[in-house]
Amino acid sequence: MQTVRIEASTPYDVRIGAGAIEHLGAWAREVLGKCRAAIVTDATVNALYGEAAEASLRAAGMDPIRFAFPAGERNKRLSTLEDILEWLAENQITRADAIVALGGGVPGDVAGFAAAVYARGIRFVQVPTTLLAAVDSSVGGKTAVDLRAGKNLAGCFHQPSLVVTDTAVLRALPAGLRSDGAAEIIKYGVLADPALFAQMCRPDWADGLDEIVARSVAIKRDFVRADEFDNGARRMLNLGHTFGHAIEKCSGFALSHGQGVAIGMAIAAGAAGRPELCAAILRANRNCGLPVECPYPAAALARAALSDKKRRGGRIALVLPEEIGRCRLEEIDVSGLEDAFRRGIEGMEAAKRSLK
Amino acid sequence: MQTVRIEASTPYDVRIGAGAIEHLGAWAREVLGKCRAAIVTDATVNALYGEAAEASLRAAGMDPIRFAFPAGERNKRLSTLEDILEWLAENQITRADAIVALGGGVPGDVAGFAAAVYARGIRFVQVPTTLLAAVDSSVGGKTAVDLRAGKNLAGCFHQPSLVVTDTAVLRALPAGLRSDGAAEIIKYGVLADPALFAQMCRPDWADGLDEIVARSVAIKRDFVRADEFDNGARRMLNLGHTFGHAIEKCSGFALSHGQGVAIGMAIAAGAAGRPELCAAILRANRNCGLPVECPYPAAALARAALSDKKRRGGRIALVLPEEIGRCRLEEIDVSGLEDAFRRGIEGMEAAKRSLK
Repeated sequence: MQTVRIEASTPYDVRIGAGAIEHLGAWAREVLGKCRAAIVTDATVNALYGEAAEASLRAAGMDPIRFAFPAGERNKRLSTLEDILEWLAENQITRADAIVALGGGVPGDVAGFAAAVYARGIRFVQVPTTLLAAVDSSVGGKTAVDLRAGKNLAGCFHQPSLVVTDTAVLRALPAGLRSDGAAEIIKYGVLADPALFAQMCRPDWADGLDEIVARSVAIKRDFVRADEFDNGARRMLNLGHTFGHAIEKCSGFALSHGQGVAIGMAIAAGAAGRPELCAAILRANRNCGLPVECPYPAAALARAALSDKKRRGGRIALVLPEEIGRCRLEEIDVSGLEDAFRRGIEGMEAAKRSLK
Repeated sequence: MQTVRIEASTPYDVRIGAGAIEHLGAWAREVLGKCRAAIVTDATVNALYGEAAEASLRAAGMDPIRFAFPAGERNKRLSTLEDILEWLAENQITRADAIVALGGGVPGDVAGFAAAVYARGIRFVQVPTTLLAAVDSSVGGKTAVDLRAGKNLAGCFHQPSLVVTDTAVLRALPAGLRSDGAAEIIKYGVLADPALFAQMCRPDWADGLDEIVARSVAIKRDFVRADEFDNGARRMLNLGHTFGHAIEKCSGFALSHGQGVAIGMAIAAGAAGRPELCAAILRANRNCGLPVECPYPAAALARAALSDKKRRGGRIALVLPEEIGRCRLEEIDVSGLEDAFRRGIEGMEAAKRSLK
């Protein structure tokens, strides 16, 4: 088992290892004391791991109850939040009790939000069951639901008391879900860790999952630490995301977040004028089952990106790779975004030809 | 004009005076800088003061927009929160902008909650238009909505950037709404200020409204300051509330919060075995148009109180007056609550006879 300590306003541990869910109850009890545990999950995860989580909590005397909402991003809504809150109240969960958020990004974000606002804030334990959630949303304290107008538009900063990541669960994921998480891990490598990046270029990359997840969580922690409320250094974590979100959007969300970010990083390296970095990123993407081409033209992507960003005024911060392990922020005028997309895509096409 | 400085995690000013709404725009701009102001109010308050607030903000270059939801406690719900959040997003309100919560407790609590969660937290200015909101909910940073299971069960702690209280607006309130606020002011007198209490026993008490509101806000601030997240000293502010909530509940909420608290304080003094204090409280209540008798028997009240509190375990903290200006906390077993009600009501009946 690996443990990463997160020093947020409220410090907590991320515990990582195969079979970790069996220890959930004991660890939760150790951190929370004796209280009731309200498991919130979605129907898919509930069928796979709901009973195991509940059994572990029950064995530890944490008196668990369980709520599963229908799976899918379309249920990451205030109406689901309301269902959870009413269920907590009906079950007389108090401020002394805790929520266990069991699942990928959607259950994690919604259940975390419920913990942030129920009785004006109760504690919660996060049990990420996707690789993406394990390396991304389990650090940083962001909780959210979507509005009609866009993703994650309502939420709170609320730190978990404990994160329990079972790498046996992650290993059992369908290939697509595993690739989605791999894109964020490649990102951490490009941002801060050449060895981690090299690992993601190996065919057997997933063999080192405990270490990969621990290293990713530690890198995210280091970027978030100085910047808990998302104003400065944390923006580096957006590597590949401005470009990637535009790609997701152009695809009508047929392409996943990880697929968007994977292409987005390659575009960023292309836009930075670093063909060798771009080729390296494409190699890592290909190794992890992630896309290596951009299916949309620069003009459409810039339009999609700007419909999000123009409200923030005339400037936009791009994260540009300098070498594997180091990136920089560059603020550009939004009017230059289409050109950045164009240079990025051209660079990516050239780098791709060099791969063969 | 009076100003009270609130030293919460984020310090802010409460500015109090007749005609203060005319200054809203200039003051908001001074505190927030130039940004957009999204006014959130209810239909009743909107008809009375919506245009004045908007005009003041517009004159100050704060580019106001305005949203009014139907008035009434039954709209203090997550569905109203959702309407507000979608409206903010449609109008492209950003993290740099602010909400202006215009109204009594319901608009204040819901709009404050919207500010706490929109884009994971934006700033807000509170403009309380009832005496109760001016002396109570404008200090402490509590925001909330009701659930089916009970009042204020979902919310956040979120401090305003500025509170603007127009005492000309408070003076124009219907008598019942003014009495409601008076109950909380009497409470502050009993807790901490004999001079404030004496003022509330004068027929012309409302002539000193600027000073009364400022003093009440300062007293609440002092109790909240050491205890921003509601765990200790702040419980003193519950004087009259355990008993009062039970009375509101027994009446099916036909009796108002202020009426409940007014009777509740007299019961507390009775339960403390202080007939002279009880008589003084009844005199203040009568002077301010508040009730001087308890229409429900001890057994029914204890049952109503316990349906709220039993979930918190076996103990309950009563706030008991020692003299005008000083109270103490006494933890009792919930099994003793009915007896406390009985002694309180008997003490109150005896004190009432002594009044005549």
